[in-house]
Order: sequence, then structure tokens, then C-alpha cells
Amino acid sequence: MINESMYQLGSKPSCIRELFMYGMKQAAVVGKENVYDFSIGNPSVPAPQAVTDAFRALTAQEDTLAIHSYTPAGGAPDARKAVADNLAMRTGMLVRPENIFFTCGAAPALVSVLRALSVEGSEIIAITPYFPEYRPFIEFTGNKFVAVPADMEHFQINFAELEKRINVHTQAIIVNSPNNPSGAVYSHETLRTLAALLKRKSKDVGHPIYIIADEPYRELTYDDAYVHYIPDIYPDTVICYSYSKVFSLPGERIGYFFIPDCVTDGERLFAAAAGAARIMGHVCAPSLQQQVVRACADVKPDLTEYDRNRTVLYDALTSYGYTCVKPQGAFYLFVKAPYGTAKEFSDRAKLENLLIVPGDDFGCPEYFRASTCVSYEMIKRSLPVFKMLIDEGK
Amino acid sequence: MINESMYQLGSKPSCIRELFMYGMKQAAVVGKENVYDFSIGNPSVPAPQAVTDAFRALTAQEDTLAIHSYTPAGGAPDARKAVADNLAMRTGMLVRPENIFFTCGAAPALVSVLRALSVEGSEIIAITPYFPEYRPFIEFTGNKFVAVPADMEHFQINFAELEKRINVHTQAIIVNSPNNPSGAVYSHETLRTLAALLKRKSKDVGHPIYIIADEPYRELTYDDAYVHYIPDIYPDTVICYSYSKVFSLPGERIGYFFIPDCVTDGERLFAAAAGAARIMGHVCAPSLQQQVVRACADVKPDLTEYDRNRTVLYDALTSYGYTCVKPQGAFYLFVKAPYGTAKEFSDRAKLENLLIVPGDDFGCPEYFRASTCVSYEMIKRSLPVFKMLIDEGK
Repeated sequence: MINESMYQLGSKPSCIRELFMYGMKQAAVVGKENVYDFSIGNPSVPAPQAVTDAFRALTAQEDTLAIHSYTPAGGAPDARKAVADNLAMRTGMLVRPENIFFTCGAAPALVSVLRALSVEGSEIIAITPYFPEYRPFIEFTGNKFVAVPADMEHFQINFAELEKRINVHTQAIIVNSPNNPSGAVYSHETLRTLAALLKRKSKDVGHPIYIIADEPYRELTYDDAYVHYIPDIYPDTVICYSYSKVFSLPGERIGYFFIPDCVTDGERLFAAAAGAARIMGHVCAPSLQQQVVRACADVKPDLTEYDRNRTVLYDALTSYGYTCVKPQGAFYLFVKAPYGTAKEFSDRAKLENLLIVPGDDFGCPEYFRASTCVSYEMIKRSLPVFKMLIDEGK
Repeated sequence: MINESMYQLGSKPSCIRELFMYGMKQAAVVGKENVYDFSIGNPSVPAPQAVTDAFRALTAQEDTLAIHSYTPAGGAPDARKAVADNLAMRTGMLVRPENIFFTCGAAPALVSVLRALSVEGSEIIAITPYFPEYRPFIEFTGNKFVAVPADMEHFQINFAELEKRINVHTQAIIVNSPNNPSGAVYSHETLRTLAALLKRKSKDVGHPIYIIADEPYRELTYDDAYVHYIPDIYPDTVICYSYSKVFSLPGERIGYFFIPDCVTDGERLFAAAAGAARIMGHVCAPSLQQQVVRACADVKPDLTEYDRNRTVLYDALTSYGYTCVKPQGAFYLFVKAPYGTAKEFSDRAKLENLLIVPGDDFGCPEYFRASTCVSYEMIKRSLPVFKMLIDEGK
């Protein structure tokens, strides 16, 4: 007797993964240079040299027990301190190492916090377009998933819609800025308006409505975009972070949740999230990766390539007539399908071995996502195909 | 509003962790050499040289994307193949790489399988003494925890008791051989008797009752003890494995679940366990660690030190009058408290800075556990304290 929901979750790969696997298969048939795979968010630039050096120095150590032993569940004290110090330096706030809990990437951090917030009837809000896994993460931690459309002109927040969806069951809203898939970065005004609304509503409903800031793209911004430290603007904010994107280590599974002292009931929430991690089999985050983070807490990524990719693809697509908000962060373009649904359009593109992700799973079936964490040469080769496809509809 | 069960789980560290933390604190007060810490199962011998070499060779590679990128959820194809080939070689069975699913250690492997088996009213059996986390893992994946006492003379299975506890809701029994904490290794006869019982009972209840073989200590056996390949004896067996103990990498979080082709409904169970992993935030197991396993799938540990520790402590304690079954595997001694409860005895021992774990959380409040994955010198220094404590009760 097997759990049917788990079976459904495990037997249908995500649309993104499916396209990615298809791309690998097609590459073997038509040649790698003839597949234009914009499906997945696998960083395309190498890890920063300091990160590679840290891996080498740590694994060169003679005392292997010092590197590979169990750490406390929340992480090695020195690694937590390095992250806390870095956050304190950047934000000017007091950050205690005890408020950091290392996890195997941002996903389990998020799931742990969501499970800690799951109570009778609890609801969690995500803003459309949202990272597709938010829905199962929210639902299978025992919460109700509530989607609220963004302001689709700038991919900020549609506050009129948001206010309608908040009620006494609302426990939290997930803020993902820079956003996957739109690349939008929330402005200070957006965050201040959000804070004011949540403060008023928290008072109305008689309990804090938390912000869960899912920030794997925090360091990936372009032009003059700036990612504000949300607890400064709204104290009841929990941060989930991952080193996957910033250090180009998505396979290495290292991230954390951080619950600042200013969070109402923060100590209880921290303990509950730790408890949730524990019953999901979390023992500690990979100890070697924790030490890499300790050594590199202050390292910044080089965004030159991602910025070039973003600009080249954005400029070309908009010159052909595609509609797209210029992303200020992350490494995706979220583009309106020029005709038909995005599913139809991406199916058509697939025939040309151009792999783009229809926005259905992001809650926006009129848009498709194109990753820009790909090779520059592939982007250049793909441009005639993008042009041909939009011209077909004219 | 915070989930109260998660808070309870997260705010009370396990008894083992608590003792371990106390030991670190006391070491600062009375000196490291005056604390006899037998609390935790942190391997005390270095990683095998081949494992250390693999870490160094992999991190020396120039192409960091090849090492650090996302792998498929179940693991990198080459790493899965290496594990499958090793299992095939050892067991003489056909093992397909697709039947292996890498996880961040054995704990999430176990939790994923347990959640896949959770249906209305489902029950999971563990044999006393059991690894304490089995209880929360079983209960918080939506199953009922059912404990069955071992045959306490040899720590094999008490079949009369086991049969009484099996009913139509029984989904699986966890088999942990070599056993933590008793060090018992199930004999071929035990496994054959278990298989016969489960076959008969599966027929009675009309659905398979699975064995979940939790085998982190599989490679850690002494004298002529042999760990049988259970699917050979009982086809409906799922294996959960970890490299923590065998490679002395407990912090690195690398293990797997393996569902052989012979398992009834095995493909559905595999998909359901993958789905369960997914909604707990599993993306992939650490990719570098996967590659280390690929390179070292056939590496065997050197057990000389553990064997010496086991023998010295066992011989000394039994010569003082303690009662203990000689462990055939793992790295623990499970000793009967010579007087009072094990909790009282371990509290008394704590006053002498001798840290042993009372068996309450293992389901055996008359026994205490002493880890033998500690330094040989510490064992030698601790012996007079063990002697003094038992003599007090005479």
C-alpha cells in the first residue's frame, strides 16, 4: 500500500526537468550545438576562485575528522559565526550565530519554516509568478497555498489583490526578490507598502503575519538594483538563503534559514523549524560545504557574464517584437508568448530544439521563462530561431 | 502561531546530543583528559586514504561546473552506476542504477521511504532496542510507531511478540543489523524465520509487509559476523544506507535508498519515496560527495581500531561484573545497568565525568550505551571509573 500523493509527486518530473532531460537526449541526436536549451537554472559560470581554493585547502588538511565529522544540527559554530558577521557587516544589524541554521540548500530551509508555521487551517501566500515548488512545499507541510497575482506591468505586488487574500488563517507571505522567473527586484516602495499592509493586517487578525524572504538570488542583481534587507523594513521576516547561485554550487546543497532577533516569537519559530528539519532527516548540512562558506562568507560573485547574457537576449528579443520586462536580478527572462498560449509556443519552439519553459507552473500561462545562465555562444546561435518563431505569427 | 509538535521536537535536544554538549562544556572546566565521553557515534578513525584522495583529486579539477552542478534528483548516473555495480558484485544479483536514489544520508532516505508507505492507519514496527529517531521519523511521516521487544538474551528478534503486533495496518518492519545500540548482527536463521513470518502475514493481510533494512553499519562487523543481503531471503526489502560510518564522513551527508527489482510494487514505491524526498526539499545529494562515492564504491574500511576498542572495553567491563552481549557489529556496547535504572546509573556516572547514554530513548531503560568509536587512550583512562561505579553497588 503506497501513498498516492507521494507517488504522484514522484512520478511526474517537473516541466523544467522534463525539458532539460529532453535537451540532453536531443543533443545526442542532432548535436549539442543545435540544441538551444534555456530550460534550467544551473549556473553557467565557474565557482569563484576563492571558493575553489577553499575546497582545495580544506580537503588538503591532514585531520579529516576535523572536516568530516557531525556538526551540531544548526551548523558548525565557526561557520555560523562567519555568516552572522557577514550579515551584520552588510546590514548594520546585530546578527547572532545562534540565529542561523544551516540546511542542505534553500529548499529544505523553506520547507522547515513552512512546517513550523503549519497550524490548523493555516495559509501561506505566494505572489504570481512564483517558483513552481512553492505549491507542493506549502501544501505538503500542511498549509493552504494561496496565489496572488503580481502587478504584471513591473512584476511588483498587486496590493489590492493581496489585501483581499489575507485573512485570520494567513501565516506568511513568501517574498522572492530577485524573482525567479521574472527577474524583478522589489523596490523600497513595494517593501514599505507591503510592510504597512502586513502590520495593519497582523493587528487585525491578532497574530504576526510573517514574511518568508526566499533569497537565493540576493547577490545576483544588475544596473543599480538593490536588494533591501527586509527585516529593517518589516521585523517579522525570516530569511532563507542558498549558496547555489552565488557560488555556482547548486549541487552542493548548502544554505540556511536565519531568524533575526526582531521576529515576534522568533525563538519558538527557530526551534520549531529546527524540529521540522529533524523529522525530515536533517542531521546537519554537509560539513565540508559549511567550512567552504566559513572561508568565503565575504566573497562576491562576478556577474559580468550573466549581465552580458541578459542584455544580449533581452535586446534581441525585444527588437524582434517580444514583450518582456527587463530583469534586474537573477538569471532569467520572463517573456510574453507572442501568440497562442506559452505552452503552445514552447511546444512549437521545441520542434526547433529551442527549449523554453511555459509559465503554467509559475502561475502565468501567458509567459515563458528563458534561463540566461547559459553559454553566450548558444544565445547568439539561438537568436535566428527566436526571430523566426515570432515572425511565423505575423 | 507556531506548530507546537515541531516546537517540542526542536526545543528538546536528544539525550545523546545533550550529553555530548555537556561533555564539551566539562572538558573546558576539568580538562579534556578527565572527561570520558562515550555518548556519540562520531567515527573516531580518519576517512580511508582513498576517500581523502578522491576529495583532493575532485576538488583539484579545473572544471568546477562538472563537479558542483545539479545532478538528477536520484543522483549522477555514473555515481548510481558505481554503487549498483558494487552491490551487484557483492550480492551476485542484478542491480540497476535506476534503483538507487542518493540522499543526504540514511536519515532522509528512511524518512522518504516511511512517508511513501504512510496510508490511512498505517503502522511501522521497530525492534527494541532501536535508534531513538525511528519513533519521530515514523510518527511524523503519518504512521503509527509500534515497538516490539528483542529477544534480550542475544538481541535477535522475539518472534512470539512480533507476530502479536502484526495486523492489517502493518506496512513495514525496520531491520537495523548491525544494530545500534546493541551491536547485534542478525543471523541467517533470524532472517529466515522473519522472512517466513512476514510471507505468511503478508498473505493473511493481503498486501506486502516490507522490510526496511537500515544499514549504516553494514560494513562494520567483527570476528566472523556476516551481514546477509536481505532481499535474497525476503524479496520485499528496501535498503537504506549511509557512508557516514564506513567512510568516517558523518558530517558529509551522503547515503541512498535502494529498492531492488524484486520488491512488490517497487517502481511505485520508488517513485513515492522520490516524491516524499522532493516535498521535503531534496534537490539532490551533495554532488561532490556523490563523486567521492563513485570513485570509492569498492573501498573497504580498516576496522582494527574499532575492534580493539570493542574488545578492551567489553573484556574490562565484563571482568568487573557488568552484563553485556559482545557486539558483533557497529561501534557500541549495550550494557545492563548494574543497579538502579540506567538513567540513575548514568546520572551517577556523569558526576565522575563519565558520559554514557541511558537506554530509555532506545526503548530499554535497564541498559546504557557506550560508544566505542572513541580514543583507545580514553577507554584505558576510563576503566577505573567503570570499576569504581559497579563496586559502589556491591
